[in-house]
Amino acid sequence: MNNFTFYSPTCFVFGKDTENQAGGLVRRFGGTKALILYGGGSALRSGLLDRVKASLAQEGVPYALLGGVQPNPRSDLVYRGIGLCREQGIDFVLAVGGGSVIDTAKAVAAGAVYDGDFWDFYCGKRVEKALPVGTVLTIAAAGSEGSPDSVITRTEDMLKRGASGDAIRPRFSILNPALTQTLPPFQTAAGITDIMAHLYERYLTNTKEVEVTDRLIEALLLTMIHEGPRVIADPDNYDARANIMWAGMMAHNNSCGVGRSQDWNSHNIEHELSALYDCAHGAGLAVTMPAVFTYVMEHNVMRFAQAAVRVWGCQMDFERPEATARAGIEALRQFLISIGMPKNFAELGAKEEDIPALVQALCYGGGRQGSISGFVTLNEEDCANIYRMMI
Amino acid sequence: MNNFTFYSPTCFVFGKDTENQAGGLVRRFGGTKALILYGGGSALRSGLLDRVKASLAQEGVPYALLGGVQPNPRSDLVYRGIGLCREQGIDFVLAVGGGSVIDTAKAVAAGAVYDGDFWDFYCGKRVEKALPVGTVLTIAAAGSEGSPDSVITRTEDMLKRGASGDAIRPRFSILNPALTQTLPPFQTAAGITDIMAHLYERYLTNTKEVEVTDRLIEALLLTMIHEGPRVIADPDNYDARANIMWAGMMAHNNSCGVGRSQDWNSHNIEHELSALYDCAHGAGLAVTMPAVFTYVMEHNVMRFAQAAVRVWGCQMDFERPEATARAGIEALRQFLISIGMPKNFAELGAKEEDIPALVQALCYGGGRQGSISGFVTLNEEDCANIYRMMI
Repeated sequence: MNNFTFYSPTCFVFGKDTENQAGGLVRRFGGTKALILYGGGSALRSGLLDRVKASLAQEGVPYALLGGVQPNPRSDLVYRGIGLCREQGIDFVLAVGGGSVIDTAKAVAAGAVYDGDFWDFYCGKRVEKALPVGTVLTIAAAGSEGSPDSVITRTEDMLKRGASGDAIRPRFSILNPALTQTLPPFQTAAGITDIMAHLYERYLTNTKEVEVTDRLIEALLLTMIHEGPRVIADPDNYDARANIMWAGMMAHNNSCGVGRSQDWNSHNIEHELSALYDCAHGAGLAVTMPAVFTYVMEHNVMRFAQAAVRVWGCQMDFERPEATARAGIEALRQFLISIGMPKNFAELGAKEEDIPALVQALCYGGGRQGSISGFVTLNEEDCANIYRMMI
Repeated sequence: MNNFTFYSPTCFVFGKDTENQAGGLVRRFGGTKALILYGGGSALRSGLLDRVKASLAQEGVPYALLGGVQPNPRSDLVYRGIGLCREQGIDFVLAVGGGSVIDTAKAVAAGAVYDGDFWDFYCGKRVEKALPVGTVLTIAAAGSEGSPDSVITRTEDMLKRGASGDAIRPRFSILNPALTQTLPPFQTAAGITDIMAHLYERYLTNTKEVEVTDRLIEALLLTMIHEGPRVIADPDNYDARANIMWAGMMAHNNSCGVGRSQDWNSHNIEHELSALYDCAHGAGLAVTMPAVFTYVMEHNVMRFAQAAVRVWGCQMDFERPEATARAGIEALRQFLISIGMPKNFAELGAKEEDIPALVQALCYGGGRQGSISGFVTLNEEDCANIYRMMI
């Protein structure tokens, strides 16, 4: 196991009606004037935003509002948020929504106390200082509620990149599984896929002897396999929602990824798809993961065989471990299709003729030098091959 | 799943040579004058204490020293530590040792800023305020490095009781698995047993539909089953030590126990044994757990069958689930014996004639009213029966 530091000082308040604690939590973590960030109309229509506003009002915390965060959130709204914070002397950013809203909140929080352009953080500069961030989560997916990460798309050229730093870990995250019961099934399934991708990205490691994190990842994948179909069949199943929501946080706060190299190539390859086609990140991952895993399987057949046996319940083929490895990848693919995810470029709205442009953006955007690294280093040809496998 | 709050703001610094970061971490978390608490001679002999002192000196952090913490740590040393903190204006308590040293540090930290008797916290009063605590862990066992809990034995009557509160969660914990390589095999095995007990105590729940935490607990148990025999066979196996050390923290920081009722009757029953006979807590648990589990198995046969199948690899006997449940308990018992743990009262140094006194202390000590509650409520007769099963 490699040396590491793990620091996850987020206070998770989990369960029914917990959004009513938002005001008290903003106060507890030092906020005296908040910017409430939210997305489209669902937080408004459901009454969630009103409950959060009432909670802040009850605690005497004034607030400004900024809505309209889109999926695959854009930099232009970040600049508006930063402006608002500075103009109004805001000292706390409260995200009410999913990963896109939370990632926007983190970008605003970092940018508001930074003299330069916030995009610097999305070009490799670590976030060392930010306004405190809190979240009220409305979808189990991105894991941003417990992570030090944020992904933003630059509006002018649709370049999608990530930033990181302990300063943007949420001080608190309110996780009420009931808030996810009104999600359309497609979004629920895309969230499930994203969570499973966070687990696979950590599972695909080149570090030896990491039994504890292997087992934790497998545990969370098994949870998703058990609970995913249950929430798709019955969206009001609170307990299944609750299990998924905690798994989603644990999948990405890195407690199951410490001390080991990780992959993240599936995420990188997918990011170009959602940047170009504005598809749901989870849907893109559903198409991307089986292709990537099949392409890189030979790098460590036993790792994929282990996942197949321990996670997917495949019988180990001791004479042909690669058959077991392949069966595990196929089980993942079929699972994702079964919960309603797309299976290829066409269903995703992607086009074969865009592959050269996708590869170009993937391998050269954001300062990359012709390849992406992870479990396996992939060059332009590899990436083109992988995109073609998705057709 | 029940509503819950999970807040684990400890910074874990994990890996080789990390004890040399102690001084910087004390400074980072606000310490300007530290009390270094330690146990017997091993921290001295190994040079660990010197390295920690050098690290503090390098950061210009003055310190006082207080050694002599015993296993099953006593209240008299806590009073000495509290006195030292007050006399010398100490604002940070640094534990260098295992659970006993860390628990003593927590008691000192709470008592130093409390007007009354620190023992109040061990009679049910929650710790709301304490000096900051840091740890340099030397054995994977108690999980105190990531928990808000402390267990102390009152010297005058050997009453062993626990206290809890977020204020005594360590600000940082340094986890260097190499420091555990010099432990005697018996202590390593007792630590493994303690970790497994922390997992079983959470596994035995009356809360329904808690797949995610069930799976996480099983993952950590599987890790212990894989790595435990490896470190007993080869004490210098750093990777196995590392997997156990992270599992030990995760087993007890409660990320795998949130939102569910827990048991803790095995711990309560064992505490009377280590209080009376001063045996290793883990050794006591090795004798206690199989007896308790066998006694309460009928309360939820399927829960024990699930552990048997998922953790111990038993075949499910669908006609006789209780046979499977029993096989899982027997597998646990045999595993603990295989790593060198005692299997009965005699090997533990306990005596049948003391059972009435044990039951009396267990069921009436510390304000209890004739029973202990958990997975199953156990009255005096139950507890006597369980102790007798251990003979």
